[in-house]
Amino acid sequence: MEAADPVLWVWVTAADAEEARRIGRTLVEERLAACANLLPGHVAIYRWEGEIREDPESALILKTTASRFEPLRARIRALHSYDLPAILALPGATGDEEFLAWVRQQTSG
Amino acid sequence: MEAADPVLWVWVTAADAEEARRIGRTLVEERLAACANLLPGHVAIYRWEGEIREDPESALILKTTASRFEPLRARIRALHSYDLPAILALPGATGDEEFLAWVRQQTSG
Amino acid sequence: MEAADPVLWVWVTAADAEEARRIGRTLVEERLAACANLLPGHVAIYRWEGEIREDPESALILKTTASRFEPLRARIRALHSYDLPAILALPGATGDEEFLAWVRQQTSG
Repeated sequence: MEAADPVLWVWVTAADAEEARRIGRTLVEERLAACANLLPGHVAIYRWEGEIREDPESALILKTTASRFEPLRARIRALHSYDLPAILALPGATGDEEFLAWVRQQTSG
Repeated sequence: MEAADPVLWVWVTAADAEEARRIGRTLVEERLAACANLLPGHVAIYRWEGEIREDPESALILKTTASRFEPLRARIRALHSYDLPAILALPGATGDEEFLAWVRQQTSG
Repeated sequence: MEAADPVLWVWVTAADAEEARRIGRTLVEERLAACANLLPGHVAIYRWEGEIREDPESALILKTTASRFEPLRARIRALHSYDLPAILALPGATGDEEFLAWVRQQTSG
């Protein structure tokens, strides 16, 4: 039996809520993500051109599969306003099997 | 020496803050989770019956162990208002050993 | 070719937004984390001295590397007001290679 496509929990930051929504909705429409959770705004602290910055930002959490990650990543880069957005996929260790199957089904075809 | 029970970081969505609190509190009371973090509301984008939906939702983050996951999962399904809630467990790669020991101790017995 | 230093997504809780910001900023300044995302407040449910508690808390999400985790962990414990803060590192399965390289570059030197 072929191993099931691993489910990933993907952390993506966006400039604001509108961008997070636009990206999240496109990815679900195009079946690159099964669902997108748009979190309320957060503050990002980071070094940019030698200076420590503290900027408001938004985050979205995507559920997808390993086989969908590369096209998902490429689509986010194409849609995103940042030169270098945070796109980090964490591996699902386990989960509710029905939910995992739903993620796989939503991102196939 | 027996390998330590892996600690999991579990992402669960709920219909609203009240449901997230009810589920989170029950899981901690029943030692199925060491702690539950109830996040402020988010917006979920997903396809349901062919239509893209955007609905308000809540999320809770649970810290538990691999050996507790199955009873945790079953209890969430029993308590939850959704037919198919998101329940996805991410593996702790490493952490503060005292904190990991606290999670194991809180979810045993 | 030497394997790249794995990137970690680290979940840390703090007493409040001010503590989250102070810790997050220090870690980025000292290159122990590439960036810190300060989330809006959440509610923590946990058992402490036999009682179930529900307390307001803050969370920060750190992006760092495996080789930086131990000094990051030790620095958080030194800065933190809790006796036992939640510090749990989740492994990056994959991500945008430019972003992963940026995390490694920001936390080296």
